[in-house]
Order: sequence, then C-alpha cells, then structure tokens
Amino acid sequence: MDKEDGAVNRFHLKHVYESQQFDRELLDTLFRVADEIKADLIRGDRSRYRLEGKIMASLFYEPSTRTRFSFESAMTRLGGDILTTENARKFSSAAKGETIEDTARIMAGYADAIVMRHYESGSAERAARVSPVPVISAGDGAGQHPTQALLDMYTLKDNFGQIDRLRIVMVGDLKYGRTVRSLCYLLTKYDNIEIVFASPTVCRMEDDIKEYLDRYQVPWSEETELDQVLPEVDCVYMTRIQKERFVVPEEYEEAAGKYILTLEKVRTMKERAIIMHPLPRVDEIPSEVDADPRARYFDQAQNGLYIRMALLYLLLQQA
Amino acid sequence: MDKEDGAVNRFHLKHVYESQQFDRELLDTLFRVADEIKADLIRGDRSRYRLEGKIMASLFYEPSTRTRFSFESAMTRLGGDILTTENARKFSSAAKGETIEDTARIMAGYADAIVMRHYESGSAERAARVSPVPVISAGDGAGQHPTQALLDMYTLKDNFGQIDRLRIVMVGDLKYGRTVRSLCYLLTKYDNIEIVFASPTVCRMEDDIKEYLDRYQVPWSEETELDQVLPEVDCVYMTRIQKERFVVPEEYEEAAGKYILTLEKVRTMKERAIIMHPLPRVDEIPSEVDADPRARYFDQAQNGLYIRMALLYLLLQQA
Amino acid sequence: MDKEDGAVNRFHLKHVYESQQFDRELLDTLFRVADEIKADLIRGDRSRYRLEGKIMASLFYEPSTRTRFSFESAMTRLGGDILTTENARKFSSAAKGETIEDTARIMAGYADAIVMRHYESGSAERAARVSPVPVISAGDGAGQHPTQALLDMYTLKDNFGQIDRLRIVMVGDLKYGRTVRSLCYLLTKYDNIEIVFASPTVCRMEDDIKEYLDRYQVPWSEETELDQVLPEVDCVYMTRIQKERFVVPEEYEEAAGKYILTLEKVRTMKERAIIMHPLPRVDEIPSEVDADPRARYFDQAQNGLYIRMALLYLLLQQA
Repeated sequence: MDKEDGAVNRFHLKHVYESQQFDRELLDTLFRVADEIKADLIRGDRSRYRLEGKIMASLFYEPSTRTRFSFESAMTRLGGDILTTENARKFSSAAKGETIEDTARIMAGYADAIVMRHYESGSAERAARVSPVPVISAGDGAGQHPTQALLDMYTLKDNFGQIDRLRIVMVGDLKYGRTVRSLCYLLTKYDNIEIVFASPTVCRMEDDIKEYLDRYQVPWSEETELDQVLPEVDCVYMTRIQKERFVVPEEYEEAAGKYILTLEKVRTMKERAIIMHPLPRVDEIPSEVDADPRARYFDQAQNGLYIRMALLYLLLQQA
Repeated sequence: MDKEDGAVNRFHLKHVYESQQFDRELLDTLFRVADEIKADLIRGDRSRYRLEGKIMASLFYEPSTRTRFSFESAMTRLGGDILTTENARKFSSAAKGETIEDTARIMAGYADAIVMRHYESGSAERAARVSPVPVISAGDGAGQHPTQALLDMYTLKDNFGQIDRLRIVMVGDLKYGRTVRSLCYLLTKYDNIEIVFASPTVCRMEDDIKEYLDRYQVPWSEETELDQVLPEVDCVYMTRIQKERFVVPEEYEEAAGKYILTLEKVRTMKERAIIMHPLPRVDEIPSEVDADPRARYFDQAQNGLYIRMALLYLLLQQA
Repeated sequence: MDKEDGAVNRFHLKHVYESQQFDRELLDTLFRVADEIKADLIRGDRSRYRLEGKIMASLFYEPSTRTRFSFESAMTRLGGDILTTENARKFSSAAKGETIEDTARIMAGYADAIVMRHYESGSAERAARVSPVPVISAGDGAGQHPTQALLDMYTLKDNFGQIDRLRIVMVGDLKYGRTVRSLCYLLTKYDNIEIVFASPTVCRMEDDIKEYLDRYQVPWSEETELDQVLPEVDCVYMTRIQKERFVVPEEYEEAAGKYILTLEKVRTMKERAIIMHPLPRVDEIPSEVDADPRARYFDQAQNGLYIRMALLYLLLQQA
C-alpha cells in the first residue's frame, strides 16, 4: 500500500495544455499512480493519495457535463473541494471583455488548480503562462483535449499491459476530432505503433498530424473501407460522424453507414482486440455491441476518473 | 440515540422513480429514520446517519433550484459530497443525441447516487434499469415526482401522528399537477382515507388516478366549490392554477378567484386541520395566511430535507 | 495564534445588505479577523477560523463567476460546504412568480447562510427581513455591492496601515458604478478623507452621494481632467467606462481616452500611492501597468477572499 513516492517526485509538469508535454517517463509515472488509485477504488477503499484542503475550480467556457463531472469526481475522491461553473462564456467577465490572463490570475487566488474548457484554441496555455497554480486543459476549441488522450493511452496500457507494437485504426471524423489528434501525438512516444485512418473523404486526418507521425517514424495509412482493416488491428478507435460536416445529405448517409460498427463487423475482429470511443456515441456503435467483451468504451470513460485523480494528485502535491 | 438499524436493514429498494414502489412498511422505515434525523438537526446536532466519502450527482435536465438544493443540502448534511448540473439539457451530451442509458452508465462511474430531473416521463426508470448505483427521480415530465409525494405523506404523519382516517381536499390544477397524482398513489396504502378533488372543469383529475383509487377502494368525490368542503377536511392540499391552461381569459379569472384560499376561508377550517402546498405559490394563498397555525407549507418544504436525507441514507448505506 | 474572540463577540450584525450597516468598530473587527486569516493562508496553514458542518447557499439571479467563486472559495477555506446556482433567474421559482421572501424562507431551511446576487435593488434586504439565517448581498441591481466596498476598504487599510487622511480619486463611470457608491458610504466613517470624482460629464457621481458626503463633512470635488489630480492622491480607484452609456460615439472615444491610466500617467503618481480597480478591467488600465508596484488590483481581488472569510465567520459563528 505504499505510494509511488519516487515516481511522484519525478513528475515535473506544472500545467497541462497539450499532450506533447508528456514523455514516456511522465506517462509511466502517471499510469502507475492511476493503477494504484484504481486498485484502491475497486477494492472499495478510499484513495491512498489525498488532496484534503485543496480546491479545484472548474472553469468551463462551454459546457461539457461529462468531462466536468469526471474532473470533479476525481477531485472529490481525492478528498479535495470544488468550485464549479457550468457555462462561464455567457456568464462571466469574459462577456465584458476581460482577458483570459486576468481571469486566470484572479481565479488562482481562489483555487489551488484551474480546470479550463474553452472554445478558443490556445486558451489554456495562455492561462498557464500567468497562473501561479496549475492549469489543466479540459479541451480547447479545435485544439487539444490532453486528458482525453491520457485516458485513451491508459486504456490501451490497461488492456494490453503495454502500448508498443499496437496496430490501431481510427474511424470517423478525423478532421475535426480533437481526441484522435491528441492521441496521435502521444502514440509517437511508443515503439512499433501502426496507425490506420479510416474516414470519409470530407473528414480525413489533417496533414500536420501525418507529418508529425512521419517525423517520429510512425507508419500510418489511409483507408476508406473499414472491413478489410478490422481483422488486423488491436484497437478500433471510433468517433462520431457529424451530419453538419457534409454539404450533400446523400454523402452523409453513405459515409455514416460505412463507418457503423455493427455486431457483425465486430465479430471479424481479433478476440483480444478492443473497441474504444471517446463518447458520446450516437449511431456509430449500435447498443447491441455493448455486451461484446471487446467493447471497452465504458471502461475507458471510467479510466478517465483514475487518470484525472492521478494527474490532479501529481500536479498538486508539489504545489 | 441508536439508529433504526433493524428498520434500515429491511429497506430493499435500489432506485426510486415512482411512488407506487413504496409500501406501508417502506414508508414506516423511511418516516422513522426521517424522525430521528429531524430530531438531531433541530437539536443543532449533526445527523447520526452519515454518508462520508459518498458522492451524489445532481443531473437536472430542466432547472429546479428548490428541489436540487433540497437534495444537495440533504447529501451535505449527511457528510456526503455533491456534483451538480443546473441545466443539463442544453449543456450535455443529450444535445448530441446520447441516450439516457449511456449517460446513466457513465455518471454511475463518477458518483454513488444519481438524482435525476428530466423533461421526459419515464427517464429516471430507464436510467435505473442500467445504472449500477441508485437513481432517484427528482421529477420527470408530466409523470411523477416521488420524493415530493414522500415528503407530503411525511408531513401528514408528522402533523397527525398517523395517516389513516384523514380527509383531504386537493385544490387547483389537478390535471397537470404531478404532485397530486403521486400523492394519490401513496394515499391508497392507508386505511379509511377520503379524497375530494376541487378544481376548475378544464383541469380536473384524470381518469387513470380515479380508477386507481377505485381499485384500492379509496372513496373520492369531485367539487367545483371549495367553500362547503373546507370545514370538513383535515388537510387542504393547494396547487397553483396556471393561466396558460385556459383558452378564455375570463374563465381563468373566475377559476383562479374561486380557488384562492383567503384568510376568511381558512377561518372556516377545523382548528387542527392543515394547509399544504408543494410551492412555489403565487396568488392562491395570500401571504396573510402564513401566520395562521394551520399554514404548514414552509414546514412541508423543510420536511423535504429530512425525507431526502433519510432516503439517501437508506439507498446508499447498502450500496 | 489566538483568535480575536473579544472582537468576534462584539460583531452584532445578522445580515449584510448595504455598506452603511458598518460602523468603524465593526470594520475594525472585520479587518482584524481578515488580517489573521490572511496571515494563516499566506503561511500555507489552514485558517484558524472554522465553519465545519455549515452550509452556504449561493443564490445568483444574475451570473457573476468572480464574486461567486470568491464567496465559495471563502466558505470552502473555512471548512464549510456550498450549494450553488449560477443563474437562478431563468431557472428558478422566480420565473413562476414566487416572491423573494418565499424563496428566502425555503432556502433558509437548506443552508446556514444565503449569499444573494440579484438584478433588483433592495432584494437582499427583503430576503433578510424574513430569513432566519444570515443573508449577504453579493450585489443588487444598481444598488449596492457591500462586500466589494468592504474589500476595497480593507485594501486601503492593508496598504496604508490606516484609512484616515487619505486622498482618493475615483475615475470613470461614477453614475452607474455600484462599487464607488458603496465605497463612498464607508469612507465617511474615517477622518480627514478627501475624495475627487473624475468622470465624463455623462457619468458623473449622483447627487445623493454628494449630499451624503456633505452631511458627514467629507470634502469632495469634481474634475474632468485626470492629469493634474494624479500626482496629489494616495489612491486612484479606476472603473470601467461602458460604451453603452454614450449616445454619441465620438463622446465615448474622447472620454475613454481621457481616463485611460497609461504607464506614463502612472509614473506621475506618488511612489507610495496605489491603483485599485474592482475588475474586470478592459482598456482603462493597459496590461503594462500590472508590473508597476503601485498596481494593486489583483491583490485587491485576493483581499476579497480574506474579507469574505472573515465576514462569513463573524456572521455564522453566532448563528
């Protein structure tokens, strides 16, 4: 029941605003602490890691009940307290023209950590630059959602014991999908990864990510058909295809149909492969798939709790 | 100062979504625990029942500050923690098309109980069917508001020592009034109850409730005049008459006027009779009535705290 | 490390709805407790003043994330719990026509203190009149914002050791600025204060405040130019000039430009003078001024935490 004290001491991040901030050593530390937290909670014990007397402020400039509750549950399970705002955009000084820097400076006087969701890419980093307390991005605009990427990586680690040598297909809206972008950055830290992008033509993965993968020598390929890829991968990472992206309605119907992971398709997957999804899901995974042992998206959401507890502890214990 | 441990062990509900789930034994247990909690709090002590380390999530898809605060105060007074959402409808994954079942599954990973207010009848029951943690309805659409019915019953018990043999008139909008419907279900569990429905023609009690009362041999009658009923009842249960229900404005004026409980009318009531109202009240009870000892609507709201504390404890102590 | 027990016992307020409720003795007590709290927190200790087991309800009928977080952080740092509502106006019984008195009576059953922000002047006082638990105004309409005035006074005391004999210029929108009005009331409690009002013609300080100052023999003057005043004052209290107040756009441009506190202007101020601002600020203080040691507006916001902790403790420890 010892804490990972050595590991904890090597965690040198102050803020979290993009997944590229993490190297393999930081990820290892984070995953080890998350493992211990998960073990405690599953046993019905309270977490051995504690943040009693610390306050986390949720500053959400656009609403995301799931992500907010995940962070707030994490802080509460650590014994800490929370201040919350569901929709600060309309409701706050931002509407009066205050800069994000001013807001961060003031909030830092009221809380020991700031979790920020913002509609503008780069906001969390701007806040971090002036804040004396840790700032954690909970997603910013079309930019990043680093803690989602961390929990995705942790889910891979949790299921396969390690991440090296995995073959992953990312499916759906890869152009606007913040989570798949963040995930790609982190996958480059591991060895012998292979990535397949399977998406309709209108929402293919952007070039900057492809170039980033090339730079780190991660092989990737593009497919428009899902069927021949499924039997060969260790992980199918599904995302939602949004109707709004398509100009021609027929194109949406065709694309959506092609990327629906029916139970029939699931049965072509390897026995030990897993299905992930950042959720919410709509039609792209029918509910009959939920009972298949390869379906791990609810465990994945649950892993978000453990990872965010580990992250909050690691950032705040040194503050 | 012992706890009602025997009683507590006999409480076998997991979720609460409609008042029909309660039988007389469950109500007795609930009321006994509520009595003890009330005694503790009135003495200025903290409750002997504790839920330290447990988390309750308020998932309100339509706003209701009063009901939400009642539940959240209850959880806090038990030593538990809360996650809250004021208006999840616009703000959550629901807007993206996520099913209530998916939401419940994920929230159950973040909290030890889910209190759900929803605009759609049946939502809480759907959530309960998949949730590994207790789901409590805080009102769903035109359907039910079971904890309101529980606190109404507790208020009757609290005032009269028992509930059998009471004569109750329900006044106002009985057609759309969720609270009077839920209350009728529970009154059938007691003996020799008599119910009078006093309402304008456009908002009379629906047939399904009348048939339910018939089936359980609870005598009921309908009146359009309040005056001759008042001196004969033990309880006047007032509800708000909403202008929007009336097509012809003059009909509203007439109806509203008829069902206003003036101080003059109150004085025709029995000395030991009581006036209840689920609140908010507007004009139907003038504020001058508040000082009359028969006015119990503020005590009734306060009883909501004790009943919700008892209910949360009973549902969560076994989880 | 003793508590200011004698002082605490002399604090005889029950509710706080306007700054005129405070006399010099109450302010002294409040500031002494705030000093102790500040010392504890800056040392990294938890506050010696505790409100464990007490609940504060934030009832915000219009949103103000900063003020709400300041109060909620204060209650949390004292060990108390919070119930919160971000925007009760649209979301609450108020929308159904419930009076503020009914709401206060019911909320008082759920919490040990009510912090109320309302869009209507006088609301907090109306709530206070019926509430069995302390009601604290967090700003009401065009009326008052008493805790802002308290933290402003505390900031003066904190910087100068005392408040007597200070010369203060209030700059900007003095007509609609709730904070400068509340501050004027409190300044009359001290000796040999001098106030200069520097504002565009369209938003000059109202006559009622000028008459109040006259009655208490506080000398005041009016200026439209800031430049010759700056070298002579101990404190520049800046406020935001809102475009909406001006009918002619050119007038706004001229006015705004005139009352911008550039670094060049700051350099004409006394070395020991200070710059205050209730925040949010927009253009009226360029960010390059932040590094000047005279800029105290972020400290001022931080003082809000200490003052609100002291106030909550003093109001609740006797309840």
